[in-house]
Amino acid sequence: MNARTTSPNRTGIQPSPASATSSAGLSIGAYLINRLQDYGIDDVFGIPGDYVLSFYSMLESSPLNVYGCTREDCAGFAADGYARLRGMGAVCVTYCVGGLSLCNSIAGAFAEKSPVVMLTGSPGMSERLNSPLLHHMVRDFHTQIEVFEKLCIAVTELSDPTVAFREIDRVLDACARYKRPVYIDIPRDMVHVIPDAIYPYHLPHANSEPQVVEEAVSEAARLLSAAERPVILAGVELHRFGLQDALIELAEQTNIPVASTLLGKSVIRETHPLCLGIYEGALGKQEVTEFVEESDLILLLGTFMTDLNLGVFTANLDPNKCIYATSEQLRIRYHHYHNVPLDEFLIQLRKQPLTRSTRAVPDWADKQVAPFNVVAEAQISIMRLIDYLNTKLDDETIVIADIGDSLFAATELISRGRTEFLSAAYYTSMGFSVPASVGAHVACPEKRVVVICGDGAFQMTGMELSTSIRNGFAPIVIVLDNQGYGTERFLHEGVWKYNDIHGWEYSQLTSVLRGGRGYDIRTESQFIEAIEQAWNDRSVLSLLHVRLSSSDSSETLQRLGERLKLRV
Amino acid sequence: MNARTTSPNRTGIQPSPASATSSAGLSIGAYLINRLQDYGIDDVFGIPGDYVLSFYSMLESSPLNVYGCTREDCAGFAADGYARLRGMGAVCVTYCVGGLSLCNSIAGAFAEKSPVVMLTGSPGMSERLNSPLLHHMVRDFHTQIEVFEKLCIAVTELSDPTVAFREIDRVLDACARYKRPVYIDIPRDMVHVIPDAIYPYHLPHANSEPQVVEEAVSEAARLLSAAERPVILAGVELHRFGLQDALIELAEQTNIPVASTLLGKSVIRETHPLCLGIYEGALGKQEVTEFVEESDLILLLGTFMTDLNLGVFTANLDPNKCIYATSEQLRIRYHHYHNVPLDEFLIQLRKQPLTRSTRAVPDWADKQVAPFNVVAEAQISIMRLIDYLNTKLDDETIVIADIGDSLFAATELISRGRTEFLSAAYYTSMGFSVPASVGAHVACPEKRVVVICGDGAFQMTGMELSTSIRNGFAPIVIVLDNQGYGTERFLHEGVWKYNDIHGWEYSQLTSVLRGGRGYDIRTESQFIEAIEQAWNDRSVLSLLHVRLSSSDSSETLQRLGERLKLRV
Repeated sequence: MNARTTSPNRTGIQPSPASATSSAGLSIGAYLINRLQDYGIDDVFGIPGDYVLSFYSMLESSPLNVYGCTREDCAGFAADGYARLRGMGAVCVTYCVGGLSLCNSIAGAFAEKSPVVMLTGSPGMSERLNSPLLHHMVRDFHTQIEVFEKLCIAVTELSDPTVAFREIDRVLDACARYKRPVYIDIPRDMVHVIPDAIYPYHLPHANSEPQVVEEAVSEAARLLSAAERPVILAGVELHRFGLQDALIELAEQTNIPVASTLLGKSVIRETHPLCLGIYEGALGKQEVTEFVEESDLILLLGTFMTDLNLGVFTANLDPNKCIYATSEQLRIRYHHYHNVPLDEFLIQLRKQPLTRSTRAVPDWADKQVAPFNVVAEAQISIMRLIDYLNTKLDDETIVIADIGDSLFAATELISRGRTEFLSAAYYTSMGFSVPASVGAHVACPEKRVVVICGDGAFQMTGMELSTSIRNGFAPIVIVLDNQGYGTERFLHEGVWKYNDIHGWEYSQLTSVLRGGRGYDIRTESQFIEAIEQAWNDRSVLSLLHVRLSSSDSSETLQRLGERLKLRV
Repeated sequence: MNARTTSPNRTGIQPSPASATSSAGLSIGAYLINRLQDYGIDDVFGIPGDYVLSFYSMLESSPLNVYGCTREDCAGFAADGYARLRGMGAVCVTYCVGGLSLCNSIAGAFAEKSPVVMLTGSPGMSERLNSPLLHHMVRDFHTQIEVFEKLCIAVTELSDPTVAFREIDRVLDACARYKRPVYIDIPRDMVHVIPDAIYPYHLPHANSEPQVVEEAVSEAARLLSAAERPVILAGVELHRFGLQDALIELAEQTNIPVASTLLGKSVIRETHPLCLGIYEGALGKQEVTEFVEESDLILLLGTFMTDLNLGVFTANLDPNKCIYATSEQLRIRYHHYHNVPLDEFLIQLRKQPLTRSTRAVPDWADKQVAPFNVVAEAQISIMRLIDYLNTKLDDETIVIADIGDSLFAATELISRGRTEFLSAAYYTSMGFSVPASVGAHVACPEKRVVVICGDGAFQMTGMELSTSIRNGFAPIVIVLDNQGYGTERFLHEGVWKYNDIHGWEYSQLTSVLRGGRGYDIRTESQFIEAIEQAWNDRSVLSLLHVRLSSSDSSETLQRLGERLKLRV
């Protein structure tokens, strides 16, 4: 289950609980480490600290690889990036000063359904008597777990050996099942405790009812077959639940065109003949918007109906024409079916005798990479940069876009084959990209990782390049320097100083970090030269400081600004 | 109330609620800005984001100064440092991605009683209908406020104009009263709303009962006068509640020697004839420990009984000999008095006819700065570095020590006059010092700020130097490079890779950040030369990369390691 290039848990198959019954004699810490490996986790990101040193030492001695990061939130983003690519990830930190530094990373994993296991130490049970004021404490011993109850799908404190193994199983199962973060707290005097008796955990059976599924699938099949202008709108859950192949098979079997959401970009390769591109309501390309909204049946699969996915609510999707299937609900027109798993629905649907759609895929959906005619001395712009990158991407590329115009512009990149596209496109936390690239390198060492990051976001977490250099990872990191929080300049009327930031000489960080090659770029020819050199040398990290005009922006950002100004 | 060199709120005096009744016609945002100024807050730290842009623009147009930081947690530490020096501070960030990045900073302010006002935006009330999935959301609209209920002494969401002003008054009063952080959330469509009617808030009266105070004070006075070997153990609350002068007057009036706790270092100048130095149980200097523990009466004033303050519970303080007075409780021997405010207790106690103690202050308590005999080519060690710094400190210095041996070694610095010593000495969150120095410069622009920071801590938040350079601040920042998490090497048996970090060329950051002067230091003579140059040039930030042996440590850390190894 540990092969680096597969993601067994994406398929929704649960690891067998067999190890729980054959674990007599294991300590709580050792059992936890075994179970992480059962779920395909080979690597853990984190920062040590005294309440977690015993467990950290056990980790370092285990088959798991431990990657130290510079900060806890970065370790969280790295684990999140790893989880998106490998199916599940883990981060390990100390009590409160470590744990509470992870809040934002874990919240992002919750919002975007990334299955991250958060491991943390805490004061030993024997230290807690008489409520002393121990260092790292906030209000009482349970402050940290109470906070993470708000941010995780399941939490546990392994304070009782009798049920510790059951608790580990329960919480890891929830992580794999719901694709959301979980929290496991090991009081430091529990790490080496060996339970006297083991009470195996029994995975709850999925509670889908065959009759419900059957009726739902029949109705969906009937509507699909009857439709004259059907379309599929594919979302990120297809990626999380390992249903990308099922999507493509359904589309090819029925000849129904597929658009994806912003967060779901790369669930289908954009060079696929049936792929329309990204649907974003009035923010997106007009031809995609019209094609989707003129459809007489829209099959939404694994799509979060978020504001950005829906073009800040400019989307115009008539529920009367929609089949809306996610891991959390199934709605057909105005009625609901309960407890129909997304995977079961999709797999059963494919088995139905579906009529092939005769709706033509329009010409504009044929994604060809335009040849790039360099204007050597022209200042590089964000869209020209993306156009050139488009000529470089291949099957082996993972693109990680940070928030703001890094994301909006990157939507113009055309994913091919197994190109992966990672971004915090719903939670939109700045600073995700550089730390996530550490996770991507660990998850997929054979892939080429390209990071596109704004200067504001880079100032938040860019120093995590240190971890890549330390480990010999060689991402291409493009810092888009527009001298501030560029997106915000489009979101609020007026010229405000708060949107400006202090300029850094980003390319000189390679001297500070003792590794990597820096580039200082202003023109198109400089950019091309740098990208070519970077692409051809996978032995070294490349840091490209791209100096943009402060008023430069993608068209999507301009449209977004116009929509959001009405609200902000 | 806004004079830069005084801290009116430390005295415990509450701003009058008069402004609440003369605020007709003000918007919620404008009223909030007025009230912050009533509490002596002239400056706000933060990062803008779309849910808080309306309020941010109002801030930028107001008399308050807005300091943009590189990351939210750094803005939180800056506000915390400012609050410790000025009596109250404020940080302003956007919803969830900003707010949840502040969890650790706010938790630290809670643990160490630093009065920080956290301001945050959120989706407008009109946007929340039908529970859409808005960007930056985690679970539902209240996730963020539910998290901060665990980390703050009071929270509010200004969602109802009718009570918004009352809520602002209530929450700011709690911040000033309890010296703990509070949370104010302004839905973005509420910023400009002008309430129809105003219902003034009435500050609750302190509920102390004169008879209780009188009996408590009399008993304490009797015990103090009867004692043959009394001692005062002074804690950080004396600083927070502006009771430093009252402490010195009590000590001088009664001739009772004073020791302070680690967190309370600098509540009394260490050159004061009655000052004994820091008491830390078996971790501290043996002569201080013996002097305190041999006393027949110990008056603990504003002291947190934390593990580090108590030398990891090696302190041996017989409750039968203790008067323990804090803002939260008053215990004399084995009985308690309820609702006796710390300030009232201390001020009334001074008015009693107290016998002057005849206990001699021992010779060793006479803190003289030893002359420094340089060994020019010797590798600099942490204790030699501190010894030299001791020859430089003066009345105008603020020392900010980060966690680990930065803190332990810095306890050997001798505070003079109004020397301020800031450290997260209880919550012990790494990375506090550099961002806090931004707050210190804003709070006290006329002071010299010296930061002592380990390499691990610097890698977490050191890039906040960017904000100092941007604003022309000139701290002296000393990075103690022992190539890893040095303290942890002493806490857990064995040699572990996880304690090593990637080395940076810290002094070269001045090129990246386009400002400051960097120094690369290995020997004593290099250190002295750098410090002299830095001390003499207050126009420029100085960044001293001090290369220590990885096994270097202070004596306190060695003692701590011996004690903690038993637990970790």
